Amino acid sequence: MLAGLQAVVDPGEIVAIVNTGDDTELHGLYISPDLDTIVYTLSGEVNPTTGWGLSGETFRAMEALDRYDGITWFRLGDADLATHLYRTGRMRDGATLSAVSAEISRAWGIGIRLLPMSDDAVRTRLRLVGGEEVAFQEYFVKLRHSVAVEEVRFAGAEAAIPAPGVLAAIEAADIVVVAPSNPVVSIGPILAVPGIKSALTARRDSVVAVSPIVAGAALKGPADRLLVELGGQASAAGVARFLSQWAGTLVIDVADAAAAGEVEAAGLRCVVAPTVMATPQIAADLARSVLASTGLAAPSGRAPGAPGA
Amino acid sequence: MLAGLQAVVDPGEIVAIVNTGDDTELHGLYISPDLDTIVYTLSGEVNPTTGWGLSGETFRAMEALDRYDGITWFRLGDADLATHLYRTGRMRDGATLSAVSAEISRAWGIGIRLLPMSDDAVRTRLRLVGGEEVAFQEYFVKLRHSVAVEEVRFAGAEAAIPAPGVLAAIEAADIVVVAPSNPVVSIGPILAVPGIKSALTARRDSVVAVSPIVAGAALKGPADRLLVELGGQASAAGVARFLSQWAGTLVIDVADAAAAGEVEAAGLRCVVAPTVMATPQIAADLARSVLASTGLAAPSGRAPGAPGA
Repeated sequence: MLAGLQAVVDPGEIVAIVNTGDDTELHGLYISPDLDTIVYTLSGEVNPTTGWGLSGETFRAMEALDRYDGITWFRLGDADLATHLYRTGRMRDGATLSAVSAEISRAWGIGIRLLPMSDDAVRTRLRLVGGEEVAFQEYFVKLRHSVAVEEVRFAGAEAAIPAPGVLAAIEAADIVVVAPSNPVVSIGPILAVPGIKSALTARRDSVVAVSPIVAGAALKGPADRLLVELGGQASAAGVARFLSQWAGTLVIDVADAAAAGEVEAAGLRCVVAPTVMATPQIAADLARSVLASTGLAAPSGRAPGAPGA
Repeated sequence: MLAGLQAVVDPGEIVAIVNTGDDTELHGLYISPDLDTIVYTLSGEVNPTTGWGLSGETFRAMEALDRYDGITWFRLGDADLATHLYRTGRMRDGATLSAVSAEISRAWGIGIRLLPMSDDAVRTRLRLVGGEEVAFQEYFVKLRHSVAVEEVRFAGAEAAIPAPGVLAAIEAADIVVVAPSNPVVSIGPILAVPGIKSALTARRDSVVAVSPIVAGAALKGPADRLLVELGGQASAAGVARFLSQWAGTLVIDVADAAAAGEVEAAGLRCVVAPTVMATPQIAADLARSVLASTGLAAPSGRAPGAPGA
């Protein structure tokens, strides 16, 4: 989605507010998977097969860790490790996550401004059916999200404050785009940081979300199952009900065109467009549809085709 | 020296008390260079060219760290990183340095028992001529010890206690061998841990040191310059005076045979032997000379030729 927006809007005009509920500490290293995946993706260096990590990566450190029966289910590539080493070293020296994120972003030549949702630790935790509670990466990577979830909570969220610039960006934005991410564990943590949901609600007419559910299923990840397990519905209408309080518009896929009435019944404007971003062109077109939905148009001079999309 | 001893004595009978004053935290990782170098050396996996790190190592993480202008003067190889990741993760979980050292040692099949001198942080710091104070690795690696030193201190030593087993090993040992290490920055930190010097003094007749100075020079490292800079003398006799309080015997190289009288004048027995351990055979022979110096003989059944020496 960011690559699509970047293809049609000056990247310097884009601020991305990023989920850090997935962050984890492993081996003493501070790991921020969503921030890193965005940086690697926008710079065109993401591993296209996995959608995370770097292209052409090696795993010598992980292989050597096997000798110690160390934690190797979270695969940290050798070059990727540099990002975690740098971030951890800077944070131990007292730098905030947002300061380090800006440095990392600059080092990769990212034009978009990346903001973690908060500089405070917020950790997504999931209680599995059976009662065990696990950290997000344990659920997502180690258990490959193939377990049923009973409850999701965001530890630390109550005391967290939005990172510098987050609320100002929401207030000043021409449009707030909510990417087609997992509502429960990707958008949910951001909403759990006090102040963000009310800032969105205040701008509700300018908040446009893209549904992550297409034809009743998530394109990737467990969004569909999580929505159902937590009492919602894995459908465009289910997504609409999830975000109707603070989003004014929902973009749904052409495959779900028949659900437009239900989305509108939930109190949202509904835009129907191709949302499955299989090519940079589709992503750019979707970005244009999103902008147009609130009356904004992409500057005509910019050609589509985002780097790394 | 340990490889030589291991060649002539059952490794299970050997306890190594290891300097941790060189330890450092970089990128949030706990790095214990002396412990690791011993493990890599005894397992035969040390890089024979550098004398530290692993053979066949790659440096992808360090190369990637350049993008961030990260700290790359302390070269951490990709496979070596696994050791630091494992140690750091275990210590963040509450394990002591000695517990983790035993685990790492076991993982590499080391038969010798390795004990850090203390589980508490003791950090060697050097005040350079001109007044600046630097950490050991900054002096040793970053500045390549090519600067003059005015004073050495061991931060944290006063409050440190010897690691479990250290004093008992000194008390119970048939012989305490002091390897030909830098007296100031390798042996000095161990002596600075309260209780160790007096334990050695109580066993003075069984303490045999091997001089790290041969023909007025250190075989490697800055031991000769440091001895002079700190008011001592870079000679077998200078070494004798450094340790006469707590060591009963000094083994000096055949090149220094003429200094035997001076060593004895400092109150030590003097043994003259080849001490430049250029081959496993010389190391084993030196180990035999050391054992013989207090009346001990190596078990006759064991052949020399230490692995990885």
